Amino acid sequence: MSAYSPLSAQLDADTDVDVESTRTEGRRKMEWTLQHMPILQELRARFAETKPLAGETIGMAMHVEAKTANLVELLALGGAEVAITGCNPLSTHDDVSAALDSNENVTSYAKRGVDEEAYYDAIEAVVAHEPTITIDDGMDMVYAIHEDHPDLLDTIIGGAEETTTGVHRLRAMDEDDELQYPVFAVNDTPMKRLFDNVHGTGESALATIAMTTNLSYAGKNVVVAGYGYCGKGVAQKAAGQNANVIVTEVEPRRALEAHMEGYEVMPMNEAATRGDVFVTTTGNRDVITQEDFEVMSDGAILANAGHFDVEINLEELSELAIDTYEARDGVQAYELGDGRRLNVLAEGRLVNLAAPIALGHPAEVMDQSFGIQAVCVRELIENKSSYDAGVHNVPDELDREVAEIKLKAEGVDIDSLTQTQSEYLDSWSHGT
Amino acid sequence: MSAYSPLSAQLDADTDVDVESTRTEGRRKMEWTLQHMPILQELRARFAETKPLAGETIGMAMHVEAKTANLVELLALGGAEVAITGCNPLSTHDDVSAALDSNENVTSYAKRGVDEEAYYDAIEAVVAHEPTITIDDGMDMVYAIHEDHPDLLDTIIGGAEETTTGVHRLRAMDEDDELQYPVFAVNDTPMKRLFDNVHGTGESALATIAMTTNLSYAGKNVVVAGYGYCGKGVAQKAAGQNANVIVTEVEPRRALEAHMEGYEVMPMNEAATRGDVFVTTTGNRDVITQEDFEVMSDGAILANAGHFDVEINLEELSELAIDTYEARDGVQAYELGDGRRLNVLAEGRLVNLAAPIALGHPAEVMDQSFGIQAVCVRELIENKSSYDAGVHNVPDELDREVAEIKLKAEGVDIDSLTQTQSEYLDSWSHGT
Amino acid sequence: MSAYSPLSAQLDADTDVDVESTRTEGRRKMEWTLQHMPILQELRARFAETKPLAGETIGMAMHVEAKTANLVELLALGGAEVAITGCNPLSTHDDVSAALDSNENVTSYAKRGVDEEAYYDAIEAVVAHEPTITIDDGMDMVYAIHEDHPDLLDTIIGGAEETTTGVHRLRAMDEDDELQYPVFAVNDTPMKRLFDNVHGTGESALATIAMTTNLSYAGKNVVVAGYGYCGKGVAQKAAGQNANVIVTEVEPRRALEAHMEGYEVMPMNEAATRGDVFVTTTGNRDVITQEDFEVMSDGAILANAGHFDVEINLEELSELAIDTYEARDGVQAYELGDGRRLNVLAEGRLVNLAAPIALGHPAEVMDQSFGIQAVCVRELIENKSSYDAGVHNVPDELDREVAEIKLKAEGVDIDSLTQTQSEYLDSWSHGT
Amino acid sequence: MSAYSPLSAQLDADTDVDVESTRTEGRRKMEWTLQHMPILQELRARFAETKPLAGETIGMAMHVEAKTANLVELLALGGAEVAITGCNPLSTHDDVSAALDSNENVTSYAKRGVDEEAYYDAIEAVVAHEPTITIDDGMDMVYAIHEDHPDLLDTIIGGAEETTTGVHRLRAMDEDDELQYPVFAVNDTPMKRLFDNVHGTGESALATIAMTTNLSYAGKNVVVAGYGYCGKGVAQKAAGQNANVIVTEVEPRRALEAHMEGYEVMPMNEAATRGDVFVTTTGNRDVITQEDFEVMSDGAILANAGHFDVEINLEELSELAIDTYEARDGVQAYELGDGRRLNVLAEGRLVNLAAPIALGHPAEVMDQSFGIQAVCVRELIENKSSYDAGVHNVPDELDREVAEIKLKAEGVDIDSLTQTQSEYLDSWSHGT
Repeated sequence: MSAYSPLSAQLDADTDVDVESTRTEGRRKMEWTLQHMPILQELRARFAETKPLAGETIGMAMHVEAKTANLVELLALGGAEVAITGCNPLSTHDDVSAALDSNENVTSYAKRGVDEEAYYDAIEAVVAHEPTITIDDGMDMVYAIHEDHPDLLDTIIGGAEETTTGVHRLRAMDEDDELQYPVFAVNDTPMKRLFDNVHGTGESALATIAMTTNLSYAGKNVVVAGYGYCGKGVAQKAAGQNANVIVTEVEPRRALEAHMEGYEVMPMNEAATRGDVFVTTTGNRDVITQEDFEVMSDGAILANAGHFDVEINLEELSELAIDTYEARDGVQAYELGDGRRLNVLAEGRLVNLAAPIALGHPAEVMDQSFGIQAVCVRELIENKSSYDAGVHNVPDELDREVAEIKLKAEGVDIDSLTQTQSEYLDSWSHGT
Repeated sequence: MSAYSPLSAQLDADTDVDVESTRTEGRRKMEWTLQHMPILQELRARFAETKPLAGETIGMAMHVEAKTANLVELLALGGAEVAITGCNPLSTHDDVSAALDSNENVTSYAKRGVDEEAYYDAIEAVVAHEPTITIDDGMDMVYAIHEDHPDLLDTIIGGAEETTTGVHRLRAMDEDDELQYPVFAVNDTPMKRLFDNVHGTGESALATIAMTTNLSYAGKNVVVAGYGYCGKGVAQKAAGQNANVIVTEVEPRRALEAHMEGYEVMPMNEAATRGDVFVTTTGNRDVITQEDFEVMSDGAILANAGHFDVEINLEELSELAIDTYEARDGVQAYELGDGRRLNVLAEGRLVNLAAPIALGHPAEVMDQSFGIQAVCVRELIENKSSYDAGVHNVPDELDREVAEIKLKAEGVDIDSLTQTQSEYLDSWSHGT
Repeated sequence: MSAYSPLSAQLDADTDVDVESTRTEGRRKMEWTLQHMPILQELRARFAETKPLAGETIGMAMHVEAKTANLVELLALGGAEVAITGCNPLSTHDDVSAALDSNENVTSYAKRGVDEEAYYDAIEAVVAHEPTITIDDGMDMVYAIHEDHPDLLDTIIGGAEETTTGVHRLRAMDEDDELQYPVFAVNDTPMKRLFDNVHGTGESALATIAMTTNLSYAGKNVVVAGYGYCGKGVAQKAAGQNANVIVTEVEPRRALEAHMEGYEVMPMNEAATRGDVFVTTTGNRDVITQEDFEVMSDGAILANAGHFDVEINLEELSELAIDTYEARDGVQAYELGDGRRLNVLAEGRLVNLAAPIALGHPAEVMDQSFGIQAVCVRELIENKSSYDAGVHNVPDELDREVAEIKLKAEGVDIDSLTQTQSEYLDSWSHGT
Repeated sequence: MSAYSPLSAQLDADTDVDVESTRTEGRRKMEWTLQHMPILQELRARFAETKPLAGETIGMAMHVEAKTANLVELLALGGAEVAITGCNPLSTHDDVSAALDSNENVTSYAKRGVDEEAYYDAIEAVVAHEPTITIDDGMDMVYAIHEDHPDLLDTIIGGAEETTTGVHRLRAMDEDDELQYPVFAVNDTPMKRLFDNVHGTGESALATIAMTTNLSYAGKNVVVAGYGYCGKGVAQKAAGQNANVIVTEVEPRRALEAHMEGYEVMPMNEAATRGDVFVTTTGNRDVITQEDFEVMSDGAILANAGHFDVEINLEELSELAIDTYEARDGVQAYELGDGRRLNVLAEGRLVNLAAPIALGHPAEVMDQSFGIQAVCVRELIENKSSYDAGVHNVPDELDREVAEIKLKAEGVDIDSLTQTQSEYLDSWSHGT
């Protein structure tokens, strides 16, 4: 075990904190969200009965808040030992982390606002549990094991990765033949992408921006950088609140898709002159840079809904600025030489997780994503010989299983194919 | 003057409060919102120069937060003495109230969370300034003067009322010949209703509900009670975030309008069986009652976006419940005998003002509404002989003036009628 | 009686026409639309029983097609004699006109494509029936009587006017004290404006343009001139088909409303450089003129959804053009000196009535509008002493009556106010 | 050569037809659509210069109308000999077919309304040209060659298939190892599916239904069967015209996607009780059957937007009906024993191609699809050794090429990745 302490021990050492009431608060948050996570509820019932994860140790680096905590407890209910830390120093809720850490089969190292050294110490502490399965939101756990603990690679069954960015990096690693165990690209399932990215990021990023700024979208020019799943969600929900949406892209087919959807499409430097609110969703760096800051209007709002805080180039903005101050909780104003003020939310980090009032993705949306995580972990254990080292798409039947659980929970019935219909779809020999 | 003290005096007496930093915080909020209130900015410049309100005393009962505070300061800049208190015990921001109270031409009595006695004492304290003009958000000031201070009626020039409910009550009072001075129905202008009610209430109520509950609208059944301007806004913005919207109404033309817009329309008791989230916007009482609670699903969310806290009948809900507890900040859970939990937000008060994280209407939206308030006050003074006692619609030219200021501020140019076109519109003697 | 013959007589004289099969075709059209006009169906049952229009003669100038014909037959069923002609030389369906003319209580003079002289002769022929009530779509009947048959004014009970333009002209006439009998402004009811103008014009104008040009709206810049009810409908439905909508306006409040809805707003001459499709809905003249044609793109589509054919200045376009030809049925191409081709639909006339494939407004929409016409006629007769000469708004109770009939027909139930609720709405004396 | 004659010969033999004016009309249609097909315009310029298809013979079975004809002429301009016939007896425009047939490098056998024998004779006639490349819309050409002309398989370079249904059948054939040459699944590119299926089918099916029935979508319950790309388009555009959309599905993930988008999802037999308009888009048979007809409302409209006419079971409907008659051009009414009338459009065939007023997909949408067809044919020739027998996805670079041509034509600029950004996306070794 690592010298880095679990959160409970850290809190016990802090005489200013009432650990018990902190845990109660954390548990209250978990219960509220569980009420709105019907898939996890159903899987709890199933996992508690069959203990499909018995004997395994799961190492996780994810945003430690109430919804994730319900996934963690589901895994523990399924028979696993779980060690977890955060995947972003600002997204941890200490009360939830403390509540989790009090579960006898769970150890949580996540603490809000830790510095870089403590952040990586906590990852090391999780790795020290010698996980047989990893779950990541951004590939930190996979990376730490491959880079610094290759001895663990033999005993690891597999992993699962939650985000676009993480999957992107895993695929690059896989292409270089560096990935040594199977990892499910949970992010790439239709279930995850459509519901989590489109609806989850779309709604929560915009609600967080609105409640951080007290501004309205009606009549605003909202510039959405990137028209992947997240960008589509932000664009659609902003237009649904009467914004005029402008999309920037680098991929011609996505650009054309946005254009055909009715949005204005243009290069960022042109959009910069028109935008009132900017939301980056590209997963890339330097999406908004000095030449864009130079032409933006006074009062422009800049927020990032992509994984890393590199989309808005804050270094260049800082250099341009003659002054900077907190204009509002979660809003840093950069005053330029000509008096214009550009307002950056949540330090350019993922706004729906890192803003002071951020709650992360809505509960029902994470319910779907985490339901897939749970059945993926079960699949790795049940069919471990089926998966080679490398990135794997989530098998269709797992995805369908989760969709069926959800529809049932929502009271939605659907049709089934008759035998005649199935045969028709399978045949190819009938004429016009 | 009343024995009831202005907020600064009250805070000075409270040794736990750092009055100066409270004021700084309040002023910071005001400055941020002013950045996004271009109409008030322009009117500040104009009023500061011409002092059109010089010599008048304005008594106000409104939600005391940053946006209102910018209206108050505009009126003071225009030469008026202003005394203000809140119109809802839970909507006051003490920091803003303290900042306002430090303006030498303004006295603020508003304090968050006061009890009923203090609430009415504060109104009395404002009346004691002997206002010549009143501005209300719910008719409290007009009512107090007519009921308890008829001696002031002679010297009052007029008033302005902000809300649907207030205007409704004023018109009833006018019909009974009880209204003794002219009051502008600011709520009834197209500018106010379309922009404030539709966009302001629509967006802020939904964002507040989402950020209070951490839930998503996608795929939810959102029941909107009432299809007036507020209801339209809530319905449109909820559908724009992929909710399935169900509307309830009592007026057949509005019901038909909602039906033709594509929403499902049904009686509340039927909607109650289907809804995930309920938002009341009727201005009436008993919109959701016992028979509805009895058929709702476990986990249903109930919020009110109408003026008073009587739309959801909490008395009946309390009687039905076997237990009640705070499930989350701003969320009171009522547990029924069969285990179902119904979750009421912000105690059934106006959710976008009374929820713990509530910020009220977006700044730009209030900018329009308050711009009209300001020019209405100017109009009362400049043309006092033009208006008899009673409710008056805002004259078209005032409404247009504010629209033009706003368009200019947004950089939007529009066409003008040519002389030929004006003549065409005025003529009636040309054939097919 | 006039020397101008009813349609049947005209057709009988034309040996190329099989009058009987023409009537059958017309009746088939009427029956199809009646299937989708539940309000008229219900009123047929009521009027047939009580004959509320017995003894009156109704003179009409309206678009003579299947839906109007069902109104005409309803009036006849109610006991009236009806004489009708068209209100636009291109909107008449001869088969429907022939079917109508064969009803023993109806005389129809409408014939498609008549020249100006015959058009006015037909109006004279209707007037010669000495109507006691007039129904207009554009004020032709009211105008003819006031101008040329003042002797009839004494016996006329009143009239009803269907369109924005007609009402506008009637109000101008009324202001000049020239209007000699009461006319209901059917166009101005919420029922008519919201449903007919927004939904009817919106959908049918766009469908007609799409089916005349075989073009798609997705990704197109659609410029909507005018943001009244018709313009709102066109804008909303075009955006709903993934167009990028640009609005032009002359009224600042409407312009601001469009801006807040999320549309781009700009002067026509700037929009002209961006538009792919232009739809005028202003009711004014010279909305698109030479300076606009000069900057439009090759292939631009120009259509008018306003009452008269003066919105697109075709004279100026003809002067600019070096050649003009029919590019497609209903599409006239104007080739400019630089090779650009501008395509005008339906000669700039009301596109959803005058295009070769045009069907006019959808049946259900006209059902509402004509339901109001019918109850207005009944009201004029039943309460003739209640209405002075001049333009009258449709009384609320008539509007409500039609809304209730429609909701019932659609199977939509709504709530009713309880007594407690009614009292609450009527009272003004309760506090916060 | 086959004994079956090209269209010109057939028309020459018909003394009732003025062949020359028929051709002129067909050419006029082609020119109009070419104006709105910027991709084909650009490719015409490129192909005319480089003649990339020189020496090849292309056999086609597609809907022969103006847009397809522009593809045919592009292929001929590129150097190919082209022989074409229809893929649906009702979708051919004889005038366009005649115009095509007069091109010296093109032979068209397509004639509207031919019987089954002539339909297959025409396919045989195309095969008799011994094509080296096939282009299908429904796999007829591929099937005829494999079944009856295996001798041609050696010389065929490859093919391209336009539709979902065709690709589905080809994949089934491929899985059985029966497909003997490479075929590009044009239907499966993002370009084709998103733009053609979503926007093309969505808009044109709804506009055709509206203009065939003269009904409006506002306030209607529109039931969309199938939530694939076509179904999404129909649902989105119907909701965009204020319909209340109900979706039926058999695949749980698609069903959940529709649910999360905000639509009601239910089995067809339940939807049947609520729908006003039904649109099938599944590609399967028996989607609406007897048990559904039995519960539908009087006046229900049934239309098919899927490839084959088997989605609505007309046999069962005919058996239920006591009478059937043409209620309107393109509308067959089936009267049931209880008086209800169900209205089937275009005999249950693809409504946007087979209805009397149908124009097929909008020009710009087909421009994209046919642009891909053209570059696929070029690719088969240029890189013939790269493709084995079987179904192939369209290579990304071809898809991108067409997207770039389109964006350029629409005047849309987009960003490019900087080198730093490309490197960032390719790397995986940087931390949080």
